[in-house]
Amino acid sequence: MAATSETSCNPLHQVHELAEILLDSESEQPVRPMLDPKAARRDLELDLPESGLPLERAIDKLRSVVLATPVTTGTGFYNQLFGGRESIAVLADMLAAICNTSMYTYKAAGVQVILEQILLEKMMKLAGFAGGDGLFTPGGSMSNMAAMIIARNEAVEDSREAGFPAGDFVVYTSAESHYSVRKNAGLLGIGRANVVAIPADEIGRMIPEKLDEQIVSDLAAGKKPLMTITTSGTTVMGAFDPIKPIVEVAKKHNTWVHVDGAFGGSALLSDAFAHLMDGLELADSFTWDAHKMMGVPLICSVMLTRHAGMTTKHFDEAATYLFQQDEDMLNPGTRSLQCGRRNDALKLWAAWQHLGDEGYKSRVERQFELAQHFRSRIDEDLELQLSCDPQWITVCFEVTGKPSDQICDELDRRQMAKIGWGIVHGRRVIRMVCVNPDLTTSDLDDLLAKIKAVGAEMPEADNAVTK
Amino acid sequence: MAATSETSCNPLHQVHELAEILLDSESEQPVRPMLDPKAARRDLELDLPESGLPLERAIDKLRSVVLATPVTTGTGFYNQLFGGRESIAVLADMLAAICNTSMYTYKAAGVQVILEQILLEKMMKLAGFAGGDGLFTPGGSMSNMAAMIIARNEAVEDSREAGFPAGDFVVYTSAESHYSVRKNAGLLGIGRANVVAIPADEIGRMIPEKLDEQIVSDLAAGKKPLMTITTSGTTVMGAFDPIKPIVEVAKKHNTWVHVDGAFGGSALLSDAFAHLMDGLELADSFTWDAHKMMGVPLICSVMLTRHAGMTTKHFDEAATYLFQQDEDMLNPGTRSLQCGRRNDALKLWAAWQHLGDEGYKSRVERQFELAQHFRSRIDEDLELQLSCDPQWITVCFEVTGKPSDQICDELDRRQMAKIGWGIVHGRRVIRMVCVNPDLTTSDLDDLLAKIKAVGAEMPEADNAVTK
Repeated sequence: MAATSETSCNPLHQVHELAEILLDSESEQPVRPMLDPKAARRDLELDLPESGLPLERAIDKLRSVVLATPVTTGTGFYNQLFGGRESIAVLADMLAAICNTSMYTYKAAGVQVILEQILLEKMMKLAGFAGGDGLFTPGGSMSNMAAMIIARNEAVEDSREAGFPAGDFVVYTSAESHYSVRKNAGLLGIGRANVVAIPADEIGRMIPEKLDEQIVSDLAAGKKPLMTITTSGTTVMGAFDPIKPIVEVAKKHNTWVHVDGAFGGSALLSDAFAHLMDGLELADSFTWDAHKMMGVPLICSVMLTRHAGMTTKHFDEAATYLFQQDEDMLNPGTRSLQCGRRNDALKLWAAWQHLGDEGYKSRVERQFELAQHFRSRIDEDLELQLSCDPQWITVCFEVTGKPSDQICDELDRRQMAKIGWGIVHGRRVIRMVCVNPDLTTSDLDDLLAKIKAVGAEMPEADNAVTK
Repeated sequence: MAATSETSCNPLHQVHELAEILLDSESEQPVRPMLDPKAARRDLELDLPESGLPLERAIDKLRSVVLATPVTTGTGFYNQLFGGRESIAVLADMLAAICNTSMYTYKAAGVQVILEQILLEKMMKLAGFAGGDGLFTPGGSMSNMAAMIIARNEAVEDSREAGFPAGDFVVYTSAESHYSVRKNAGLLGIGRANVVAIPADEIGRMIPEKLDEQIVSDLAAGKKPLMTITTSGTTVMGAFDPIKPIVEVAKKHNTWVHVDGAFGGSALLSDAFAHLMDGLELADSFTWDAHKMMGVPLICSVMLTRHAGMTTKHFDEAATYLFQQDEDMLNPGTRSLQCGRRNDALKLWAAWQHLGDEGYKSRVERQFELAQHFRSRIDEDLELQLSCDPQWITVCFEVTGKPSDQICDELDRRQMAKIGWGIVHGRRVIRMVCVNPDLTTSDLDDLLAKIKAVGAEMPEADNAVTK
C-alpha cells in the first residue's frame, strides 16, 4: 500500500540513508568536537516534548544526535579496549534490533537459541572446557559476577537457599585486576574488604608465590579462601597472569579459580598466543568479551565454566508461564542471569561465519603486529619512554617530562584523537590499545607524531602520582 | 573509492535490502514455522566454519537465519509482555549499533549520556521521585537486583564492605511476584528461603493485612524484615498490588519498599491509570521496563529510587584509567552495575521525541482498550471462561473443558499464533497480553476464533493442576 504522506512512512525505510550519512561522517570527522553538555542539551533540543514531533522532525533530531556522538571506529579512537568494527557484525546487530527476540525460550527466539549454543560450544572448546557450561551475559563485569556467584555457592553449599554467611571468606585477585572484582564482592554480599590484592610483577602479572604466602597466612589467621581470580589481559598494562602456577597454588588450598579474560581471552583465537593462557583448561571458569578484540558491537560477553550443569544449578528458577515447551537445553532462560534478554549472539555468529577461525586468528595476529610496531617506534624514540614491557596489544608510555593526562585531554579538545591515560608503577602514562585491526602502521605513526607535537607544547611536568 | 568487487563492499550498505526483506516477510508470515532444532542446525548450516565464508555467502546465511526467526511484531505474537514495535525506536537502536558507544563516560559516549539523564529525570518525575536517582540496567530482573542490593546495604550498613551476614533477614513479596525476586535473593547472598510469599487476593493483588501479620509474626520469632517488594502488573494476571497500604505496613516496620513495575510501570503514562500505582511516591525504589509496553526493542529497563545519591553510594568503584575528565554526573559508569554498557537510551529517547507524553498516553490507553474489548468478547461467549477480573492489559481465560496448554502448542504448530499459558487459581489458563497497540479489534476477534476452533478439535480435559 502506498503511504499517504512522507510522515506516514515506516521509519525503518530510512535506515539506509541514515546509516550512509553516519558512515560518511565517520570518515570525514574521525574525532567529533567535544560538546559542552549544557549547550548540547539546549542546542540539540534534547528534552522530551509533551506533544510528539512529526516523524520527519523526530528523525532529523535523531540524525543530529548520532552525528554529534563520539566516533569509536577509525583512526581517532584509542580510548577503550574496543575500537573499529566488523561490519557484518554490525549489520547482524541491526537485524537483531528488528527481529527483537528475547532469548529465554526456543518458542520465542527459535534458531537464535541454537546460534547461541553453537557459539558457547565453540568458545568452550577453545578454552579447553568442552562439555562444560556457559552463558551470555550483559558484559564482562556481569560475567565475572556470574562466576563469583557460582564459586561462592559451590564453596558454601547452602548459600543459594539460606544466604551467604559473610565473614571470614577471602577472594584473591591481582592488584592489577579489573575493578568489577571488588565491586561484585560488594554487590554479592561477600564484602569489598574481603578482596585481597596480590602483588604483581614488573609487567603486571600476579605473582603466584605471593598468592601462596597470602593464603597460608590467611588460613593461619582462621580465614577461609573462597576463590582466586586471575586476569588474562589486564585493563591498563594488558598483562596475563600465569594461570598454571596460580591454579597449582589455588587448588592446593581448594579454591575455585576464575580467569577474567574479558580483554585477553581472544588470545585463544591464535595458536601463536594461546600459550599466554596455559593452564586455563585447569581453571574453573572464564570470562571472555567478544565486543573487545573480536570487533562485534557492545555487548557480547560470555562466562564459561569447565563444570557441566553449573548455570542451571545456580541460576534456574521455575516459571511455568515462561518455560512451557521444548527441553530445557533449548530454553536459555532457565540458566541465565536475566529473564528477558537481548540477542547478543547473532552479531558474533555472523562475524564468525564471515571470518571463520582463520580470519579471527589473523585478526588477533594483526592487532598484535600493530602493537609491536607501535612499541618499536617508542623504543627507538628518545623523547618517548615505555612504561613496561608489553605482553599484549596495549602499549603504555610517556612523552618524557610531559604530562600524560593533559596530553590526552588536549588531543581530544583539538579533535586529534581520543586516547586515555592510566597509572603504571605510580606514574601517569598514556595507554595505547591497538585493538582496531583496520589501522595501518602509518596511522600509528601519525598518532605518535600528534602525541609528540601536543606534548612539545606542554610545560614540563612530572607524571609521578604523589598522594 | 570504488569497491573492486561486490564482496569487498561494506555489508552495512546492505542493511536496507535486508530490512525490507525482513519487514515484508513479517507481514506475509506473521507466525513462522516451528523448526526442529536439530534439522535447523543442519539445514541452515549454522555451525561455524574454519575458513570464513565470502561476504555475500555469509550475508545469505544471515538472511536465512533472520527469516527463520520467530516474529514478535504483528498479529501472531501474544506470547510475552512485549509485542509490536515503535519503528522509530528500532531505527534508533540500529543506529546505536553503528555508533557503538559504551555508556560509561562522557568522553566515550558524549551526548548519549545526556539523553540517558533526560530520560531518567522524566521517568523519576512521573514516578514521583523527582530529585532522586536512577540507572539503566540490562533488564527488569537486573533492575530488581539493583534495588535489592541498595535495600540490603542500606538495611545492614556495613554489607558493602564487610559482606552481608545472612541469617535472619526476610524479604517480603507477593505470591504472584516475578521469579527474579527469589532468584536475586539467591544471587545476592540473601537466600531464596528467606523470601516469604504473601498471599494475594482473587485478582492477584498482595493483601496488606497478610503482610502485616507475617511481619509481626516474624519479628516475634526474632527475624529481621529486610525489604518489601510489591508488583505493579504481575506476570500472569497483570495485577497491581495496592502500594499505599503496603507502604504503610512496611514503613511501620521500617523496611525498604521496592515496586516492581517492569510490566505495569507504564500505567504512569496515563492520568487515567496512574491511580493503579497510588503510593509509589512513598516507596523507595521502582523498576520500569520500556521494552514492554513502550514498544522499544529489548533491553530498556530502569531502576529508579526516591533517594538521591544511592547508585553512586552503592555501585561506585574508583577506576582512574576510565573516569578521567568531566564531573561524575556525566560519567554513568561511576554508578551503574556494569562497566562497558550498551546504549539502551537512544531508542527510548527517539520514540519519546516522536510520540511525546501525549502519544505515550494514547498508546497505553489503546492497549487497555484492546484488553477491554478482548475481555468483553470472553464475557459474552459461553464457551469461554474468564479466569480472573483483569485489572490491566492481560486477560487470562479458558476454553471451557479444553486443555489450555495444548491449545497454545497447537496454535504455534499450525502457525496460527504464538500465545502462552499460565496458572491462575490452580488452573492452566491461556494468557493473552494486549500489548501491541497496532492490533485492531478484529485481529483480536480472529485470534479468539482461532483459539476456539483449535479448542473444538481437542479432547475434553481438565485444566486443574493436580501435582
